[in-house]
Amino acid sequence: MSTSSLLVVGSVAFDTVETRAGKRNEVLGGAASYVSVASSFLTPAPVRLVGVVGTDFPEAHTKFLESHRVDLAGLERVEGRTFRWAGVYAKDFSTRTTLDTQLNVFQDFRPKLPPAWKDSEYVFLANIDPALQLNVLEQTAKPKFVACDTMNFWIEGKRADLLRLLPRVDMLMLNDEEARLLSGEANLPAAARAIRGMGPKSVVIKRGDAGALLFHEGGVFAAPAFPIENVVDPTGAGDSFAGGFMGWMVREGNVTPATIRTAMILGSVLASFSVEDFSLDRFRKLDLTQIRERFLAFADLVHFEKIKL
Amino acid sequence: MSTSSLLVVGSVAFDTVETRAGKRNEVLGGAASYVSVASSFLTPAPVRLVGVVGTDFPEAHTKFLESHRVDLAGLERVEGRTFRWAGVYAKDFSTRTTLDTQLNVFQDFRPKLPPAWKDSEYVFLANIDPALQLNVLEQTAKPKFVACDTMNFWIEGKRADLLRLLPRVDMLMLNDEEARLLSGEANLPAAARAIRGMGPKSVVIKRGDAGALLFHEGGVFAAPAFPIENVVDPTGAGDSFAGGFMGWMVREGNVTPATIRTAMILGSVLASFSVEDFSLDRFRKLDLTQIRERFLAFADLVHFEKIKL
Repeated sequence: MSTSSLLVVGSVAFDTVETRAGKRNEVLGGAASYVSVASSFLTPAPVRLVGVVGTDFPEAHTKFLESHRVDLAGLERVEGRTFRWAGVYAKDFSTRTTLDTQLNVFQDFRPKLPPAWKDSEYVFLANIDPALQLNVLEQTAKPKFVACDTMNFWIEGKRADLLRLLPRVDMLMLNDEEARLLSGEANLPAAARAIRGMGPKSVVIKRGDAGALLFHEGGVFAAPAFPIENVVDPTGAGDSFAGGFMGWMVREGNVTPATIRTAMILGSVLASFSVEDFSLDRFRKLDLTQIRERFLAFADLVHFEKIKL
Repeated sequence: MSTSSLLVVGSVAFDTVETRAGKRNEVLGGAASYVSVASSFLTPAPVRLVGVVGTDFPEAHTKFLESHRVDLAGLERVEGRTFRWAGVYAKDFSTRTTLDTQLNVFQDFRPKLPPAWKDSEYVFLANIDPALQLNVLEQTAKPKFVACDTMNFWIEGKRADLLRLLPRVDMLMLNDEEARLLSGEANLPAAARAIRGMGPKSVVIKRGDAGALLFHEGGVFAAPAFPIENVVDPTGAGDSFAGGFMGWMVREGNVTPATIRTAMILGSVLASFSVEDFSLDRFRKLDLTQIRERFLAFADLVHFEKIKL
């Protein structure tokens, strides 16, 4: 186990979410929240969170994050309201509709690393403007492993900045539609090949309940999604995946293909827990024993005998 | 290795197919063709095919099927034209449009088992009218393992017959949309639970390039699809899956959860080859060495270390 440090940069938000399982108003959300807390179950050292909230961000949330050893020295608190998002999922979870987005203090977010964090070895750049993601990297000394997320909005609107960022990251994580949009290829292996040509050594394509695919020098790896019968709220599943993934990378302290494969499974494990409740609530009652059990369940989910033909 | 026999009942057809990779006119198709030939790579004994063709069915096709040890004693040849289907796939393979369906001699297909085949131990009922599928079962003595396919058309139009059939089969294989339609459940584990309640001990839900899920007494098993960059023609992929699956079941001669899991992978292997060329053409140049190599590639595709947490 290494004592390496994980830096997470991204949004902290209030989410208003409605699914077939119910509705929650202004609960804790935001990519950086999910990534930090999900990773915290695995990282040996506190996770370093860089984000911004308004003066309306309650102490209860701060205490919750700190209870998961999330270091908030990089969480700016500025005059104004915290980022708010509201959405509703179709009854079958096949689509979600954004009802409201209020960037508020997130509008002028300029990530600033505390000086002591410039040595961070592992960096996760959650989905923000690629120019800001690049700026974060310029504030770091020499990270060992950098992964980033992005979205349609940046692929279409800030493509040049994104293409400047990609050669600087080790891994791009994105969903299947984003991979197709970025690459212009409908076929996922072809899309991954094209994206790796843009710079990242590794590409992870997230496919929701169809799992995730890793394309890298170690070949292709397919991580299934855990079949969950009672999905409550898929919000943050992709970020929880990233959290579990990065948490394992930091814990192992190396970037070998074998470690990356195991990290894919731990990402899937954390994502599978995340959807079982609203907001980050499933993480409030999660422990390492449950994570261990589900890891073994993943191993069983894909197990077959290596027969002779 | 057992010497059990596999009986396959279904369509033999001429397909006219257009994909981004090209167009083929009136090439060999039909579910029973794909299932039989795919399974023939694994079965110890000749595969027994029950179907119907017209007087226009060429000797070249008969010879091709026989070259794969497909026993055609149950392939009726009647006055008239063979079943024809024509379709075109979207450039990204996300949808396909049927341009023409001419049932021809298949319209009056009444499957009739040669007397010597009534002892068939393994039975695959490809997608035909569930009343006919049931009739085939009534012609068999006491099969050890029966699997069947179905489609939207029968789920909506012949639901009562389908519900009479399901308690008589060991396994239902269908795609995700069909599973949702049959069960009324959007969530796939919930759909599988509901369908198992209709009779079949096992349910396989096929998800195209997202792989296939098995739900049975041995728990859940996820078989990935092999990432294929140059898909030529997806026609028959599901039937090739069924063929590889049944071929392994017959070869092993038991129906244990471990055998069923391996059969899922061999189904995925045969399906992955099938899409690499039009019609059954990929099978014309396929051999056991290639099957063995891709089986190992599947093992690598999902391999991760069983770490201690």
